[in-house]
Amino acid sequence: RVLRIALIPGDGIGREVIPAGRRILEALPPSLGLKFEFTRLDAGYELFQAAGTSFPDRSIDVLRHECDGALFGAVSSPTRAVKGYSSPIVHIRKKLDLYANVRPVKTVATDANPIDMVIVRENTEDLYVKEERTLEDPEGGVYAEAIKRISARASSRIATMAGKIAVQRQKLRESGVASIHKSPLVTITHKSNVLSQTDGLFRSCAKEALAAQQFVDAGVAVEEQIVDSMVYKLFRQPGSYDVIVAPNLYGDILSDGAAALVGSLGLVPSANVGEGFVMGEPCHGSAPDIMGQGIANPIATLRSAALMLEFLGEEKASAKIYAAVDANLEDGKLLSPDLGGKAKTEEVVNDILKRL
Amino acid sequence: RVLRIALIPGDGIGREVIPAGRRILEALPPSLGLKFEFTRLDAGYELFQAAGTSFPDRSIDVLRHECDGALFGAVSSPTRAVKGYSSPIVHIRKKLDLYANVRPVKTVATDANPIDMVIVRENTEDLYVKEERTLEDPEGGVYAEAIKRISARASSRIATMAGKIAVQRQKLRESGVASIHKSPLVTITHKSNVLSQTDGLFRSCAKEALAAQQFVDAGVAVEEQIVDSMVYKLFRQPGSYDVIVAPNLYGDILSDGAAALVGSLGLVPSANVGEGFVMGEPCHGSAPDIMGQGIANPIATLRSAALMLEFLGEEKASAKIYAAVDANLEDGKLLSPDLGGKAKTEEVVNDILKRL
Ligand SMILES: CC(C)[C@H](C(=O)O)[C@@H](O)C(=O)O
Ligand SMILES: CC(C)[C@H](C(=O)O)[C@@H](O)C(=O)O
Repeated sequence: RVLRIALIPGDGIGREVIPAGRRILEALPPSLGLKFEFTRLDAGYELFQAAGTSFPDRSIDVLRHECDGALFGAVSSPTRAVKGYSSPIVHIRKKLDLYANVRPVKTVATDANPIDMVIVRENTEDLYVKEERTLEDPEGGVYAEAIKRISARASSRIATMAGKIAVQRQKLRESGVASIHKSPLVTITHKSNVLSQTDGLFRSCAKEALAAQQFVDAGVAVEEQIVDSMVYKLFRQPGSYDVIVAPNLYGDILSDGAAALVGSLGLVPSANVGEGFVMGEPCHGSAPDIMGQGIANPIATLRSAALMLEFLGEEKASAKIYAAVDANLEDGKLLSPDLGGKAKTEEVVNDILKRL
Repeated sequence: RVLRIALIPGDGIGREVIPAGRRILEALPPSLGLKFEFTRLDAGYELFQAAGTSFPDRSIDVLRHECDGALFGAVSSPTRAVKGYSSPIVHIRKKLDLYANVRPVKTVATDANPIDMVIVRENTEDLYVKEERTLEDPEGGVYAEAIKRISARASSRIATMAGKIAVQRQKLRESGVASIHKSPLVTITHKSNVLSQTDGLFRSCAKEALAAQQFVDAGVAVEEQIVDSMVYKLFRQPGSYDVIVAPNLYGDILSDGAAALVGSLGLVPSANVGEGFVMGEPCHGSAPDIMGQGIANPIATLRSAALMLEFLGEEKASAKIYAAVDANLEDGKLLSPDLGGKAKTEEVVNDILKRL
């Protein structure tokens, strides 16, 4: 099988980690029968300054018509409001209807307090519809409004995705591949005590979707948490969560919180999943403070490549990458500075490739 | 001076902790020259079921015309959407224009990794305006929209409050009262990389307000964090924050996150501050799981009483309460179960009163 993958490094350390993603895909054993064709696409704030767009429409077309998946690095946000600039990642998610943002957050199994959860974030609506306007009140005061939009369709769809992931994780646990044991659980996060209609809709659709027979049969338990309480519990008892499903913005916040618990954003991958297209994306940003030093942690990108393969149906290939990364972490000798080590990006990648 | 204080226990453990708040106010040494007159007001979901309102208008009038402050316990949210029910706390904040929600989060000074920060949360707008509607799209799909509203006035006002608190904290540190040292810093939290108009307005107004000469002269540094990154850093390096200012919803989420870092929501107080009226409120909820057992941690309420006094200009009285609470915590012998102890609410309160 030939997989056509777009490489979109973006700004900052995006350019240092995306090449690592390419390398690991190319290093997969031939016995897996996978071939890759790569296309490089520009994106980000630097491109915007040069070309007036942070991601050209023709690049959207390339993704849509010529690619099976992509690896997206990171982009810088301008430090002041810049007219006409908007984040390419949000744009791509929306244009390609990459409706689920799947973010597995885990420690290695040998950790004293193992954490192994997945945050399943709705990826197309909520405040990310970016419908905003600025107004003046009768006394001349300025104010601005943004729309938070939640649809039944997107809420049911993301909850179904969360349920399927819970079932899949349980299968892996039963087959002995996953080493941290718990029973399947989906936690629905919302703030319906304040937002009774929008978050109320998310909540009721998610509950309904997760009450489907396939999830009941698989023993998937369902609970809910108000988002503030969710953040509290995430810190207090991270080991007890399995799959967390949330509207877009809460999912954004929760996944950074969860990343903090496992030691570094540099470890956490994500997949932006649509019908027939998957884009892997490390959860970290463009990290201007460390860019150019060759010390960015490549693991979030390597795991994102694995996650992309997983959602493209290539589970054997993805399992190989996960295992090689875990072996590097468990060994603990070649770690990047965010994990307390001294290894360069290059050295970490080489070590992981060796373990593949 | 006579202070007229409304006691609003609400539901669940609110009824177990608010009496403790009353007791500590009454136990303050007469030398402080403070007298209290208490009025009890009902609120919450139980009241709603009995009377069709979660907080009657006449109670708003009592707060407005007959009280200097209040202590609010907690209210239960119904476990399913209930027509006509809405949270009394959000209602009171809005009706009395209690524009700042101030939430100090700290460990005792003897903690190995001391944390001492205040979250200053805008308390009147953002998604809490609760303007929502439910609609149908052309294909018959249901969706809902909520307005997130951010005004220049409220943003400047809350940032100014944050700046003043930073200055005040620095004064306390310089006078040797506060024992955890750091330099004054206000961190502005927003998500203007996605919400350029609403959060962009919050950001620019906050920056401008904090650039005022009074803050510059006092050496208050100002920085900003995107909310997802803020949650990450809050967990990774909590000791480095001093004052965090945020729009309503982010403030809600961040304060629960910060509470997790100091061990328990049962420790974290808040003050809802307006012009001429202050309402203390523990950050925890009504905790139906432990209600009726007499084991709720009263400290969040005792500290809320202190915080209320602080904003009513009675700093000596509030310092006494804080010190008595800290002494109980440092001693560590009479702690409630949320802190790993076995003491009942009553025993904790008695111990703290003894130390007053
Ligand atoms: C860069 C930003 C627009 C983005 C988001 O908010 O989704 C990022 O935080 C993420 O989580 O991928
Ligand atoms: C109960 C709820 C409406 C409230 C809020 O969201 O403000 C609570 O979480 C708080 O922080 O006081």
